[in-house]
Amino acid sequence: MSMKPSNVLVLGSGMVGSAMAVDLAADPRFDVTVADRSEAVLARVAQRAASTGRLRTVRADCSDVREVGRLAGAADLVLGALPSVFGLQTLRAVIEARRPYVDISFMADDPLALDGLARERGVCAVVDCGVAPGMSNMFCGYAVSRLSPCTHLEIYVGGLPVERRWPYEYKAPFAPHDVLEEYTRPARLVEGGKIVVKEALSEPEYLHFPGIGTLEAFNTDGLRSLMFTLKVPSMKEKTMRYPGHIALMRVLRETGLFSKEPVEVRAADGDGAVRVRPLDVTAAMLFPKWTFEPGEADVTVMRVAAEGTLDGRRVRMAWDLFDRHDPVTDTRSMSRTTGFPATIVARLLHEKRFTTPGVHPPETLGAVPGLLDAVLAELGRRGVTYAASTQPLPAAAG
Amino acid sequence: MSMKPSNVLVLGSGMVGSAMAVDLAADPRFDVTVADRSEAVLARVAQRAASTGRLRTVRADCSDVREVGRLAGAADLVLGALPSVFGLQTLRAVIEARRPYVDISFMADDPLALDGLARERGVCAVVDCGVAPGMSNMFCGYAVSRLSPCTHLEIYVGGLPVERRWPYEYKAPFAPHDVLEEYTRPARLVEGGKIVVKEALSEPEYLHFPGIGTLEAFNTDGLRSLMFTLKVPSMKEKTMRYPGHIALMRVLRETGLFSKEPVEVRAADGDGAVRVRPLDVTAAMLFPKWTFEPGEADVTVMRVAAEGTLDGRRVRMAWDLFDRHDPVTDTRSMSRTTGFPATIVARLLHEKRFTTPGVHPPETLGAVPGLLDAVLAELGRRGVTYAASTQPLPAAAG
Repeated sequence: MSMKPSNVLVLGSGMVGSAMAVDLAADPRFDVTVADRSEAVLARVAQRAASTGRLRTVRADCSDVREVGRLAGAADLVLGALPSVFGLQTLRAVIEARRPYVDISFMADDPLALDGLARERGVCAVVDCGVAPGMSNMFCGYAVSRLSPCTHLEIYVGGLPVERRWPYEYKAPFAPHDVLEEYTRPARLVEGGKIVVKEALSEPEYLHFPGIGTLEAFNTDGLRSLMFTLKVPSMKEKTMRYPGHIALMRVLRETGLFSKEPVEVRAADGDGAVRVRPLDVTAAMLFPKWTFEPGEADVTVMRVAAEGTLDGRRVRMAWDLFDRHDPVTDTRSMSRTTGFPATIVARLLHEKRFTTPGVHPPETLGAVPGLLDAVLAELGRRGVTYAASTQPLPAAAG
Repeated sequence: MSMKPSNVLVLGSGMVGSAMAVDLAADPRFDVTVADRSEAVLARVAQRAASTGRLRTVRADCSDVREVGRLAGAADLVLGALPSVFGLQTLRAVIEARRPYVDISFMADDPLALDGLARERGVCAVVDCGVAPGMSNMFCGYAVSRLSPCTHLEIYVGGLPVERRWPYEYKAPFAPHDVLEEYTRPARLVEGGKIVVKEALSEPEYLHFPGIGTLEAFNTDGLRSLMFTLKVPSMKEKTMRYPGHIALMRVLRETGLFSKEPVEVRAADGDGAVRVRPLDVTAAMLFPKWTFEPGEADVTVMRVAAEGTLDGRRVRMAWDLFDRHDPVTDTRSMSRTTGFPATIVARLLHEKRFTTPGVHPPETLGAVPGLLDAVLAELGRRGVTYAASTQPLPAAAG
């Protein structure tokens, strides 16, 4: 049975967007269009998918919602991989164009605010569909659907360079401004059924991962939709770095170098004074050092665990990811682990295995029987392997 | 025998200048004039010396050399405690006014460049006349005059807050820009009779001082005139902080936050871009945190040691200073240990105990029999006590 390929639009051809486009172009069911404002990145993605003959590029200003609406209207299915600041407006434009949508933009705004609009328009959109948020949400949704009750959820995640370079031993696998935001935005956790706010970078824990060593985990504001969609009395999300990173970031933060409050300093040229945000200067100094070299290897480490009662017994379910940069295609691990969940979920939408109108976080899909297994099987085919385990726990005290 | 008091001019009424003025006003031999551009600091110093009736203040712009020349011409003796950038021009103005001069401005320029001019004018000027440079130079000059040969000189010095506050555990007892300069300017040492250049903050050593604990010493460019005036084959100067400071300063330096190379960032107000020096922004963030609170206690720790042959035996001569903030007069230790050597040497000049025309570093005075003992006796009277010791050393190998 041969059918005319469907038109898939990928908005944004950055690190993750291009990995998504290449993955989709390898699928004979799709003709892929990648839109980006940069000729250079479009040329690169076109070359990477050249052998498939199923990828075309279009130069477009994706910050312009009318442009996004036009492009989406010409597609059967849309994936979003734009910077987080464009996340919400792009979601709205694709909903208005009435196209199924999968997004990994990690927008600061609440995408669920557009749930009503998506229902009205009969559109199925899945947001936060990367690794964390993304797979982490799916595991949590799955766990809550299986455990009764689920009493605890925890997520540990980090994207790291393989080579550790003094002093930060870190490179940013996504937009660096979003990284610094993780170090300042108060972290919301759930304790005793209530949302509690803790300082970012607080409550360090040290976890050992064979193959990468001991990592340092700290509170970040990463639960996002899980805080509101799941009724679990204890939930936390922590980011991981090589040990020592917390101390340095706390020093920079304490010094005021992450501050957005303008300070006045003399201008470098001329005698006048100028007002700048210390964060902008710090970012200008840090980001060149936090950029991966071409071909530089990275890893993604994630551990999601859920505790609760399964068939009358207390258990701990866990999923462990340890993924490496792909040296053959020079695809960064963070691009693989973030991009593939989105392309796989896009296929599920295309195959009508999930069609519910609305804006959905991935935990909703995780709770649908069969969907998580389908996603994990497809990830495994791409070399992204989660080790799942279920261990008995001692019965809860009291 | 009662004489008309001599007129002493103190240029600058900052932390050290005001301590100098108060010390001089307590001496019935002097009528003291303090010049500063700030009414507020002049009011403070006037109040502190009010009981003596021998101190008057004059509001003046000491960055204007004609103003300095006028004021110096009306005085019998001049002391300089201005910011380092005005050091050289002020020295020249006082020499041109033909007045004896003692300065602690720590100028970046080489003051000995004006030695010829001072000889021509018949003026005796002593520069770098604080604690280090200052007393450290005097000890070195003394040691070289006593040991034959002197084979090694070392200076360890630090001015520190008593209360250690995370993360830097440091406050700047003098102009903070000059402190950051210590962390970037390559350090010149003497090894094997040659000047060698090492990175600032390099070669950490840990020295324990009873009463303050273990301190961390690192190379700084502090030998200054000693490199050229003394023929000693091994000389080093190190600055001391509480342990951990080096690591943080190296991180800030490595990150580029001490850089004077302009970077472009968006303006805090409006849409434009502006160019600023990262160092200026870092300084704007650090200095408010590095400022002593009113009444906050500090300490000055110094150890100067000389090795060589005395009466045919290898010895190590050392001078140890451990000085504390004076809570009665709320005079900071760094102001006492820096200001009093200058006021005491000014008295020596006034008493004609040292009159040689020229611009002299303090090591020259240290080599003059009796002068160091006179300075130490006067310092002791003010509670600034150096513990001197001479220990035998094993004979040099080879």
